[in-house]
Amino acid sequence: MSPRRAVVLSSGGLDSTTAMAMARSEGFEIYSLTFNYGQRHDCELYAARKVAASLGAALHVTVKIDSSIFQGSALTNDIPVPKEGVKPGIPVTYVPARNLLFLSYAVAWAESIGARDIFIGVNAIDYSGYPDCRPEFIESMRRTSELATKCGVEGDPIRIHAPLSGMTKSEIIRKGVQLGVDYSMTHSCYDPDPTGRSCGVCDSCRLRLRGFEDAGLKDPVSYM
Amino acid sequence: MSPRRAVVLSSGGLDSTTAMAMARSEGFEIYSLTFNYGQRHDCELYAARKVAASLGAALHVTVKIDSSIFQGSALTNDIPVPKEGVKPGIPVTYVPARNLLFLSYAVAWAESIGARDIFIGVNAIDYSGYPDCRPEFIESMRRTSELATKCGVEGDPIRIHAPLSGMTKSEIIRKGVQLGVDYSMTHSCYDPDPTGRSCGVCDSCRLRLRGFEDAGLKDPVSYM
Repeated sequence: MSPRRAVVLSSGGLDSTTAMAMARSEGFEIYSLTFNYGQRHDCELYAARKVAASLGAALHVTVKIDSSIFQGSALTNDIPVPKEGVKPGIPVTYVPARNLLFLSYAVAWAESIGARDIFIGVNAIDYSGYPDCRPEFIESMRRTSELATKCGVEGDPIRIHAPLSGMTKSEIIRKGVQLGVDYSMTHSCYDPDPTGRSCGVCDSCRLRLRGFEDAGLKDPVSYM
Repeated sequence: MSPRRAVVLSSGGLDSTTAMAMARSEGFEIYSLTFNYGQRHDCELYAARKVAASLGAALHVTVKIDSSIFQGSALTNDIPVPKEGVKPGIPVTYVPARNLLFLSYAVAWAESIGARDIFIGVNAIDYSGYPDCRPEFIESMRRTSELATKCGVEGDPIRIHAPLSGMTKSEIIRKGVQLGVDYSMTHSCYDPDPTGRSCGVCDSCRLRLRGFEDAGLKDPVSYM
């Protein structure tokens, strides 16, 4: 019997890479899906490709999304990335409906290739406060995709796995290390320099660095 | 006060054109959104552009979707379009999660441009049996988009209008005629000839022709 396929949303970051390693450890054949949506930290696209190769993905696809769709975000527009530390509320790095769109692509692709499992590395504990990372969004998305698809209507719906949802950043890192993930190839920074070095002070860097510290490990990526 | 903006999903067909005319008649400023997803009937892209201009849209955008995402459909792959008449069940012209993906784009764009209304011309009476045209899908999508977005979380959610949902095809046509829609610029056929003439026998043509007949009107488009 051939292995079951899973579409894994990959940003080349710490969380999605760990989610991909977890999908692989469950025996899935990995179909890695990355989005080029005009993000300023587009070096993550290269990280995602390296990660997919490293974790033995059967296929890695980078989908181009017309970036004019997304406006008002520090990740896609000429708005400074906050560097003062993680604050309550939804930050200006929020990209409108990003995970809704990413998961919709994943559902379309999954149904097309006969996959019934999608993995997404959202995390609702050590996270940036984005609404589309919360468990209630993921559950609603699962239900909507069941209603939207032929396979869902015919009783063979797509499952959306968010295995990191209840984990702290340090637990995620420990899990990844245990599964053999090489975090040196991942990229998390929202505002890297032209050589790809991380800033160390954006929300994403802060959450990552604190996670490594809490895990008692050294973050292997380069910082400015 | 400037008019409220609405994103209108437009395929250049009869239904979405009528939905756009209805949005306009309610006083919305129209942001027309069309998708090039590798459909064999890509002459609908030109129809959508004409419709947007004719109905005075403020902006008309055609978003390109990587067509490799969609597999197994007669609209995007080398599979014959059925011509034997509308049958029960989901036909082979079903495109995986198409309206899920289209509405996700619409939600992202709407939030980006400050629109809080989306119009989609889905119809669940004289329709092709696609799961993502049913009211329960639309309602679930509305709820998911509320959970996914900053504006939704902050109490200013996006509304998804499906004004044709309970109308027969002939009622839709009568409504459009009453609103001044020129249906000669619309395109519905799944399998037109190279000059854009409709086949007259695919499901979409059959539903359209029966609608005009029931409305006591002549369909102004050309048939082979």
